[in-house]
Amino acid sequence: LNQTPAIESEFNRIRAIQHELGLSSSRVKLGIGDDAAICEPPKENLLLCSDAMVEGIHFDFKYTSFEDLGFKALAACLSDIAAMNGEPLYAVISLALPRSISKKNIQEFYQGAKAIALQTKTDIVGGDLTASKTGFFVDVALVGNAKSPSTRSGAKPGDFLAVSGLPGASRAGLFALQNFPLSSCSRSLLQAHLRPQPRFDLLPALRASQACTSLIDVSDGLSSEIHHLAESSQVGFLLEEALVPLHPDARKLSADAFEWALSGGEDYELLATFDQMKVEQEGIPNGFKIIGRALEPNQGIQMQRIDGTRSPLVATGFDHFASS
Amino acid sequence: LNQTPAIESEFNRIRAIQHELGLSSSRVKLGIGDDAAICEPPKENLLLCSDAMVEGIHFDFKYTSFEDLGFKALAACLSDIAAMNGEPLYAVISLALPRSISKKNIQEFYQGAKAIALQTKTDIVGGDLTASKTGFFVDVALVGNAKSPSTRSGAKPGDFLAVSGLPGASRAGLFALQNFPLSSCSRSLLQAHLRPQPRFDLLPALRASQACTSLIDVSDGLSSEIHHLAESSQVGFLLEEALVPLHPDARKLSADAFEWALSGGEDYELLATFDQMKVEQEGIPNGFKIIGRALEPNQGIQMQRIDGTRSPLVATGFDHFASS
Repeated sequence: LNQTPAIESEFNRIRAIQHELGLSSSRVKLGIGDDAAICEPPKENLLLCSDAMVEGIHFDFKYTSFEDLGFKALAACLSDIAAMNGEPLYAVISLALPRSISKKNIQEFYQGAKAIALQTKTDIVGGDLTASKTGFFVDVALVGNAKSPSTRSGAKPGDFLAVSGLPGASRAGLFALQNFPLSSCSRSLLQAHLRPQPRFDLLPALRASQACTSLIDVSDGLSSEIHHLAESSQVGFLLEEALVPLHPDARKLSADAFEWALSGGEDYELLATFDQMKVEQEGIPNGFKIIGRALEPNQGIQMQRIDGTRSPLVATGFDHFASS
Repeated sequence: LNQTPAIESEFNRIRAIQHELGLSSSRVKLGIGDDAAICEPPKENLLLCSDAMVEGIHFDFKYTSFEDLGFKALAACLSDIAAMNGEPLYAVISLALPRSISKKNIQEFYQGAKAIALQTKTDIVGGDLTASKTGFFVDVALVGNAKSPSTRSGAKPGDFLAVSGLPGASRAGLFALQNFPLSSCSRSLLQAHLRPQPRFDLLPALRASQACTSLIDVSDGLSSEIHHLAESSQVGFLLEEALVPLHPDARKLSADAFEWALSGGEDYELLATFDQMKVEQEGIPNGFKIIGRALEPNQGIQMQRIDGTRSPLVATGFDHFASS
């Protein structure tokens, strides 16, 4: 173990950036800088989750800026809190940094994280900072609060299956970045890929309706998330291709737009099931679109194509163990 | 992004291991398997921290088994909770795994984590699991509770500086592993390096005495931690070499044993300051040994060598940006 005071002092400068960019509201009694942060406990139920992103697996600095990465790493974890019908409170961010990363890069990373933290009223209260011999690694852990948490396990046969937003848009944005000059890429698809928005905006309507029986976020692609709901709720599903809303710019880009919705991942939209009777009485909560139904478990997980044929829906979602 | 169902199903098997090894007491309402865990909030103050370990920086699988790594990654983060005078509640563990890692390796990792979790009554409630193109990366985030949190910032000139255990033992254990056959290594030094114990056992006496004015854990080596206390408390320090307790096996191994105490890191012992008057009345809490004094801030941070000479104490602690 070599001692290199010059690098150690660089390390301290990075900590200073972290400190400076740390956000804390009055519920944070002690933020970045001690062994742990001291905060007010959540009022109802404590939610806890973490989400890691690895260079070469989840992102490539060819297409993602440090600011985008800071934003997206926090947004991805925030989406898990949204998927529990919760509100975010406190975040810690651990970074492993290759030597090639500059102080400016780190500052940009935290600026991106700060933007989504401010927007969602999340306090960044600490984390860890270490070197990496190889790639850039970031892990975000979040504490949230939920009065009435939603889970993956309440769907029952007959429930409507519905999704928010335009699934596949993130994958379409990546495709555009990989294949076209930036100036000719759809702004809206780039936004979907680089600056995904956790859908806290949908939760008030969701809570008001009380029709929601299960909830998950679309981080791995529709097909995988439908499988997750099926497994947790012990139901089958029928997904109807004709009902899945696609981004018009994604359709223009490729005939794969529907495939991207199924397996692209990183959309951070919400996928929910809703009680049929309540939906028939009150309609579907704002921002959701029905794309199928929950079936009896022995009916399996099926997809009805536009041509009317049915086939098993295979979970082809974003596979972290298959890297491009 | 390739889709490889075979690998995806391997991923599911790993999740199953995680699930099976997840620990949850009655305060956990929903553990591993949803978007976030749902838990009872801490009763008093919420503590939140995270601690990352990177292959090639913090550990080398030549010397560290997967079980040791699971134990140590959680122990290191637990030590931050101990350093706040807190009790651990909930942990999430994020892993980035190279393809070379087997299912058995992962099982061993979680077995190690489970051992220290059980011992410290910590619930492992979730985490993230992803691939890594290069090394193994682990990040642990912990939520704890503290009735009366201790911080780094309460030391005042005149306070005694004291440490628990035998600092430098972890570095001595690593030295032994790197230089001698396993069978001839001191069991006690190996234990210190591979299975460090967060010092929750010292907290009851610490609380009872009320003499403690600041507290930190020795993760980066004594010299760096003394600097951290000095900076947070705005005091100077005098460290006396003659008072620093060293492991007899470390002394036998090398003349560097004191240097290891200063800069080796990963001891996960507690470093504290105690009010002079209270110590003179009640003695020092069990398990701590006085190694110096807090000074006025303008006196700086000094070390008195055994030969009586004084010199500035340089922060030479474990430097994550200088890798071996």
